[in-house]
Amino acid sequence: MKRLLGLLPILALSAVCAFAQTTNSVPAPSNVPGAEFPRLDSDRRGTFQIKAPDAQHVQVNLPQGTFELAKDDGDEGTWTVITEPLEPGFHYYAFRVDGAMVFDPGSRAFYGASRHGSGIEVPEPGLDFYDLKDVPHGQLRTLRYHSPVTDSWRQLIVYTPPGYDANTYARYPALYLQHGGGEDETSWAQQGKTDLILDNLIAAGKARPMLVVIANGNLPRPPDAPPGYSRAGMAPFAAELLTAIVPTIDTHFRTIADPQHRALAGLSMGGGQAFIVGLAHPETFASIGSFSTGLFGGIRDTGPFNINDYVPGLLDDVTATNANLDLFYLSCGQQDNRIDHTQTVVDQLRAQGLDVAFNSFSGGHEWQVWRKSLHDFAPRLFR
Amino acid sequence: MKRLLGLLPILALSAVCAFAQTTNSVPAPSNVPGAEFPRLDSDRRGTFQIKAPDAQHVQVNLPQGTFELAKDDGDEGTWTVITEPLEPGFHYYAFRVDGAMVFDPGSRAFYGASRHGSGIEVPEPGLDFYDLKDVPHGQLRTLRYHSPVTDSWRQLIVYTPPGYDANTYARYPALYLQHGGGEDETSWAQQGKTDLILDNLIAAGKARPMLVVIANGNLPRPPDAPPGYSRAGMAPFAAELLTAIVPTIDTHFRTIADPQHRALAGLSMGGGQAFIVGLAHPETFASIGSFSTGLFGGIRDTGPFNINDYVPGLLDDVTATNANLDLFYLSCGQQDNRIDHTQTVVDQLRAQGLDVAFNSFSGGHEWQVWRKSLHDFAPRLFR
Repeated sequence: MKRLLGLLPILALSAVCAFAQTTNSVPAPSNVPGAEFPRLDSDRRGTFQIKAPDAQHVQVNLPQGTFELAKDDGDEGTWTVITEPLEPGFHYYAFRVDGAMVFDPGSRAFYGASRHGSGIEVPEPGLDFYDLKDVPHGQLRTLRYHSPVTDSWRQLIVYTPPGYDANTYARYPALYLQHGGGEDETSWAQQGKTDLILDNLIAAGKARPMLVVIANGNLPRPPDAPPGYSRAGMAPFAAELLTAIVPTIDTHFRTIADPQHRALAGLSMGGGQAFIVGLAHPETFASIGSFSTGLFGGIRDTGPFNINDYVPGLLDDVTATNANLDLFYLSCGQQDNRIDHTQTVVDQLRAQGLDVAFNSFSGGHEWQVWRKSLHDFAPRLFR
Repeated sequence: MKRLLGLLPILALSAVCAFAQTTNSVPAPSNVPGAEFPRLDSDRRGTFQIKAPDAQHVQVNLPQGTFELAKDDGDEGTWTVITEPLEPGFHYYAFRVDGAMVFDPGSRAFYGASRHGSGIEVPEPGLDFYDLKDVPHGQLRTLRYHSPVTDSWRQLIVYTPPGYDANTYARYPALYLQHGGGEDETSWAQQGKTDLILDNLIAAGKARPMLVVIANGNLPRPPDAPPGYSRAGMAPFAAELLTAIVPTIDTHFRTIADPQHRALAGLSMGGGQAFIVGLAHPETFASIGSFSTGLFGGIRDTGPFNINDYVPGLLDDVTATNANLDLFYLSCGQQDNRIDHTQTVVDQLRAQGLDVAFNSFSGGHEWQVWRKSLHDFAPRLFR
């Protein structure tokens, strides 16, 4: 008992510290069930915490910056930091513990940067289009298909809208939606909240019930392809999409198998895929969406943009091209370093006579912009 | 150029070291695409590697034991160890870097121990029942339902067998399959390889095409429930299963909604749920499977097992109970510390007149035993 009493002041001090750090804060919605950290307060300040008893130096790396953690007194090697207010949306993050990259056991795992790492979801005040609401919900279906391109089994995820199983005679249009570099078919499902965005749009009558096909767009790059975006570099993806993915979907789902009822969109790398492969295949896709692509510049110097480098002949008969396209949509984050180049190319393409829908959203090269892009894009489809 | 040449001997040494460590080894099948570590050699020795430039002490914790990593010479802070031969099957693992628990960026993330951690898949020679083969494949569908027990939206995963969408007039039996403590609805899908096990059994004509419902069995424990397994502790799960999960499945899928076409099984904690809730509800489930449950003892001293503590009256009319049960199946790993108690209880229940099917498999309290249990159990169902 004497020994226990001796411990009490330490325990009490520790409890006070923990309370001071977390007043007015709640666990992040992206945490695993029961995890108390990371936390967010009402000013969107994040409290990050990790146990590292023998560490000398602990940081947390967020897109917004790096924050140094301090070792708490009177505890068992816990390190903590309260950050500045975080941007709303979803952010990948990792700790650095004595130089080692460390994922947070408090966070669910999200596939990005070619690994399953940590992420934090920061709610955006006033925004509810991706909230989980009391509306009919669709399903996310994982299926395997054999790829003739890689000669291996691959996975894709299909969102089926509410009522798909019950309305066995109904047929549906399909949006093919591609992830960014270092991500995979789970990214639009998890980080993107695709099912919730579509559930809410469909329930509100704002989008037509549709399938959303989320395939894995990572394919071996031909060794002779030039660096960056190119038709040659995209050839394996084009073959995968056109000879494996689209036929698999048309076989296994009740689609309307014509270009007017297929759209191809994607973010970043996937935006380049949608642009280069989608615009070159009007016999398959009549609607194209390219979110935050680096195709136009902004991440490396690619020189003036010439559409003939990517989709030869697209503007030779721009009237026919416009007639074939139900929708050609571009978007970018207003704080993305790709924004200026994107706006320049939108102006350029419009001056060349191409019908281009364009929108931009507050945010950088991050998921909040892509969620908003999908929410803006999907209602325009299949009308 | 001079500076570059100065680096060459170091780079060459580093390359030699890396090669020496990985001769005859290949990346583990559970790695993220492109990750070179962890690796397995033909003797099932694991090579684990992590970058931790400023760390003092790095270990890897596997179920089989803890292995100390050594810092490589002439590189950028890479630590490596080659383990003793690892047991076949799937193992959770984590590094310890200066006392911090660290997940491996080379591993896919698996939900266990209430977090998304690392896992390594060690192939078992001669075993192919969960291989990805060129057979018709079912789908794994994630759906949301509202729980009246927790008053929140929850997720479950449903395996639909090959042909489910095409045969719109066919109805199917359903196996409800529960995970262990610290796991969730993704665990049987990922670690358990449920879809591959069923695809292969169905393709070989060894199991009847069936739905497999993988629900999240984690529910708040009533504060007045005793520690360990009890009817009171399981009451929220029972309510969730019987009033939310089963009705959701019977509403949204083409089931055969009678007890002869429903089975309830689970592993460890889920095995206790199947035993206590399943046996008490013959009006819902006529087949029960309990894999590696701690209900009978072996993890704590629970005293002699009395079935009336868990399913009162089950043996009062054992002839009627046997007639109601199409299958009552128990299994356990031969190296699990629950094995002796399980065998004792099997003998005891049989002596009391209950029909009990029992099997055991080489392995401890791990997924390889549960995959083998499912592979042994599913063909016995719905005959």
